[in-house]
Amino acid sequence: MAILDRIQHVTIIGVGLLGGSAALALKARKPSIRIAGVGRRQESLDEALSVGAADTVHLDPAEPLAETDLVLLCTPVRAFGRILAACQPALREGTIITDVGSTKADVVAEAEDILGRSGPFVGSHPMAGSEQKGVAFSRADLFEGALCIVTPSPETPAELADGVEAFWAALGMRTARLTPDAHDKAVARVSHLPHALASLLMLLPDDADLPVSATGLRDTTRLASGDPEMWRDIFLTNAPACLEAIDRYAAGLAEFRKMVAEGDGAALEAFLDRAKRRRDATLARSLEDRRVAME
Amino acid sequence: MAILDRIQHVTIIGVGLLGGSAALALKARKPSIRIAGVGRRQESLDEALSVGAADTVHLDPAEPLAETDLVLLCTPVRAFGRILAACQPALREGTIITDVGSTKADVVAEAEDILGRSGPFVGSHPMAGSEQKGVAFSRADLFEGALCIVTPSPETPAELADGVEAFWAALGMRTARLTPDAHDKAVARVSHLPHALASLLMLLPDDADLPVSATGLRDTTRLASGDPEMWRDIFLTNAPACLEAIDRYAAGLAEFRKMVAEGDGAALEAFLDRAKRRRDATLARSLEDRRVAME
Repeated sequence: MAILDRIQHVTIIGVGLLGGSAALALKARKPSIRIAGVGRRQESLDEALSVGAADTVHLDPAEPLAETDLVLLCTPVRAFGRILAACQPALREGTIITDVGSTKADVVAEAEDILGRSGPFVGSHPMAGSEQKGVAFSRADLFEGALCIVTPSPETPAELADGVEAFWAALGMRTARLTPDAHDKAVARVSHLPHALASLLMLLPDDADLPVSATGLRDTTRLASGDPEMWRDIFLTNAPACLEAIDRYAAGLAEFRKMVAEGDGAALEAFLDRAKRRRDATLARSLEDRRVAME
Repeated sequence: MAILDRIQHVTIIGVGLLGGSAALALKARKPSIRIAGVGRRQESLDEALSVGAADTVHLDPAEPLAETDLVLLCTPVRAFGRILAACQPALREGTIITDVGSTKADVVAEAEDILGRSGPFVGSHPMAGSEQKGVAFSRADLFEGALCIVTPSPETPAELADGVEAFWAALGMRTARLTPDAHDKAVARVSHLPHALASLLMLLPDDADLPVSATGLRDTTRLASGDPEMWRDIFLTNAPACLEAIDRYAAGLAEFRKMVAEGDGAALEAFLDRAKRRRDATLARSLEDRRVAME
């Protein structure tokens, strides 16, 4: 945890579930750390103070930067440009800046336009969260064991990317690196499209059908309970990769429709078997799955 | 539990997870009940005996019928015709027959063709289960608190439908009645299509994308771990309702694609918000959801 020896002061911009959980995780590991919480509403900032997710609070993101070693951007991604522009004049040499946004190509390009291509910004996507929103749901262990993807661009200095990766590892995360583009294509397929599919499925049944639903529909639509504003921004900022994923999925759905329309049992079984094998080989964790299934 | 006073002997045809769990649930409630287990393979029948899910076992479904009060069909639905034809000559007056199949219009029509329109068959769909397959995973509490849909047809005598409904209620299930057609349309939307969508999603990512996936993809694809043979039969027997559900879903996906392609933030947010509100109002059970999300 050498990285935490070098970090005495962290500014968290947007102290919601993720920002608050990062604050609590940092304090659990290093009680002497100082956290500055930045937000647009005094009420949210007071709540951050009351749950111990900030030591000082600020409406102006530039205010705490003179003493800050690391800035963590936790607002919706479409606010990043405005915030980074406001921070830029007040940043001191050596401060690292990263974020928790779910899309990376747009975010990294915009941050590098404002702050420069060789730092101090490195994109991060810690893949942890829940449908709960707000600092009140923060947990010191939210990030533990989950995956964080760090997305340096070609000109990011190695020690900067290493520092950001070490920061997330210090909070208990597994880490991986991808280019911003590769990240966006992968998450469009494994995270963003699944969210849209869950929302679409939630709107499919008639009202009279819902009492017939069981844990299958509930689990399959869980993502649809996510924050509409955050997810709107994700689809807007990751549109090209999402469109590609939608087209791939729609082609699969058309193929499946053909199997059903033609009563092609062999093709149906082969398709279902291929999906089952892939899931069982990669995602299924039998005990957790069984517990959910048995609820 | 007056119904269990009237049932001394039950024949379960297909002693897997559901049949075995029904046997264990019956024995937990009425230790004196006798269960005849029927199957095609002696090995499975021996396993049913060893876990206490059958008192006698039979390769010929007709063999135990002379003393049977209730027959529970738990094989894949496409085997029902052959089995009912084999049972028909040996059935005695007063024996009730029901099933656990996930589709009902085909099943009820076929059973009534073989056994008559005014009984003794009444369709049932107990909506319980798991991705686990086989009698070894049987649990006496598998059905408790879950929903069972009973699907009498217009000519089914009221006391027969009442008896089948009381049987599932005695095993701890909530019950509802639908016509076989209404059942099939509703489950196509809330159960069958969700299964296909999960399988399609599981096959969408490239291999290199999978390490980036988190609980979202895992939970959203849970259904894809189901038994391919069983689900093949479900799509084959419920094809018309599934095609209608696919077309409705594909139209929704095309609309969503348009919102993303046009960068229409207002439409995206309204869509996501509508889905979230509907789920939160109907399906979300906050404690269970939160626990899953936090894993």
